[in-house]
Amino acid sequence: MTAVLVTGCAGFIGSHVVDRLLGRGERVVGFDDFSSGQRRFLAGALQHPAFRLIEGDLLDRNALTAAMRGTDLVFHLAANADVRFGPAQPRRDLEQNTIATHNVLESMRLSGTRKIVFASSGSVYGEAKIFPTPEDAPFPVQTSLYGASKLAGESLIAAYCEAFAFQSWIFRFVSILGERYSHGHVFDFYRQLRSHPTHLRVLGDGRQRKSYLYVQDCIDAMLLAVPRAGGRVNILNLGVDGYCEVRDSVGWICAALGLSPQVTYTGGDRGWVGDNPFIFLDTTRIRALGWRPLLGIEEGVRRTVAFLRDNEWLLERREPQLEVCT
Amino acid sequence: MTAVLVTGCAGFIGSHVVDRLLGRGERVVGFDDFSSGQRRFLAGALQHPAFRLIEGDLLDRNALTAAMRGTDLVFHLAANADVRFGPAQPRRDLEQNTIATHNVLESMRLSGTRKIVFASSGSVYGEAKIFPTPEDAPFPVQTSLYGASKLAGESLIAAYCEAFAFQSWIFRFVSILGERYSHGHVFDFYRQLRSHPTHLRVLGDGRQRKSYLYVQDCIDAMLLAVPRAGGRVNILNLGVDGYCEVRDSVGWICAALGLSPQVTYTGGDRGWVGDNPFIFLDTTRIRALGWRPLLGIEEGVRRTVAFLRDNEWLLERREPQLEVCT
Repeated sequence: MTAVLVTGCAGFIGSHVVDRLLGRGERVVGFDDFSSGQRRFLAGALQHPAFRLIEGDLLDRNALTAAMRGTDLVFHLAANADVRFGPAQPRRDLEQNTIATHNVLESMRLSGTRKIVFASSGSVYGEAKIFPTPEDAPFPVQTSLYGASKLAGESLIAAYCEAFAFQSWIFRFVSILGERYSHGHVFDFYRQLRSHPTHLRVLGDGRQRKSYLYVQDCIDAMLLAVPRAGGRVNILNLGVDGYCEVRDSVGWICAALGLSPQVTYTGGDRGWVGDNPFIFLDTTRIRALGWRPLLGIEEGVRRTVAFLRDNEWLLERREPQLEVCT
Repeated sequence: MTAVLVTGCAGFIGSHVVDRLLGRGERVVGFDDFSSGQRRFLAGALQHPAFRLIEGDLLDRNALTAAMRGTDLVFHLAANADVRFGPAQPRRDLEQNTIATHNVLESMRLSGTRKIVFASSGSVYGEAKIFPTPEDAPFPVQTSLYGASKLAGESLIAAYCEAFAFQSWIFRFVSILGERYSHGHVFDFYRQLRSHPTHLRVLGDGRQRKSYLYVQDCIDAMLLAVPRAGGRVNILNLGVDGYCEVRDSVGWICAALGLSPQVTYTGGDRGWVGDNPFIFLDTTRIRALGWRPLLGIEEGVRRTVAFLRDNEWLLERREPQLEVCT
């Protein structure tokens, strides 16, 4: 039995990882500050004798090091996960992603924990020139504070692997969909249509091409790769073998809700500053380990809408507004 | 006339940049905390009416923002510049390089300064697979905390360019040699030979292949590229068209000093954890702008030895020891 620390344990992906690890008989320490995590996502875990919850901030190094003690493996999933709001809060990605990741690594070093799984992002490719984009694509130029902070996190992890003989699994995700999804375009569209079912406002021209992965497929991939990828620094794209346009997703969401709103596009090939008009990752590496996603994008969108319909309490949260300071 | 802020103005490269800018008639604000900078390097600048020195820490955002006011361009050269000591002080590169760079960018945003020159490093290529290594080499894996912190700095700068319409010139240097050189292998060897002229201890097997550039060639390149490279994010390697082995450099240093010490190699293809056994950068991009280095590696080493011989006061500084915490 392994002891695993999960940061961001009350988040969308983190809470599923907790449930899956407990289901496999692991001992799990969950760490979350509940700034965006949801206690309800841990309802099952909190009943489980092998789960311990620690409420804390990753910027509190003492609390983190205390939580780390006795663990063998870390799933570092806590993050500011929204790529859009960087320009409005330029220090948030630095603190919650880069500095927080450094603190996780330092706590691991001090505690003797040497294995880390990291949720990175396809955003680190900036505006890629090769599609599908492989892990060894040409050295990218960052276009978002979020991507910059995730690349900084990856880089710190790789340097710790070299300096302190850590081992790491760095997953570059496309956007993730499914149960417990709580931010992103399906969320935004669902909330708009609930408030005014006859019209929908979409950022950009709706032609942005994006790739999405179902959350359980994402977790299958991570759990499969940790024992199978034996390098010191294992970098793996996660995504499906295709993409859709934002307009496709609008259609699926409206169909699932039985609505035919008037759709207004704000125009331009990007939805916001730093938006990437095309994300499509090459998943040859993770597939070579024996993984296949079970759900496609359309089914992922449908399940997400179904989840939101059953969990409208999530919509009550105050979402930051997309305004940019100059 | 431009007003230029130079961070690390009392450092090896920074103090030369200050002198060159003043010589061209620019107004210069120098910012340094003198943690490694030398007041003597500013002896000329301090006599100049267009130079203003501000003694401050880049982690002090208020002091930095006050210094930034009214400037048009920043040369951000302040850094923990020694790649070797990361494992002994794992937070130093994060603070002095990554967070400090973020503070510079934030101060620029708040002050309306939108152009930045950044001293990055060939270390960001990790252990490259292509030689000479071009700027768009395959996406690297970091092998040192120093390289990780420099890549994080580059990434932040690029993201600010996208979010806030900054313009940047990011230079990936090989090691720099010449007058005011104050850390690195020539320094270490010189100090050893001054203390015990009959023997020299060299980290690694001496077969590491490294590239070096003379400091005035480095500054020529930066001053030439800023007006000529007009992209939003301009990334440019700086180096000479070749490399040497550490053993070659040992030979040149000993010849310059008229010494024939017994040389002991500690062995292995790396001098320290995260050492890169081969650094050789492709400089096609900067050459296409019309730049050529005037000095080769051997002449750079000779000038560095001559400088150290004339400035032995520099050797009195306490150098950190190369020990690694675990």
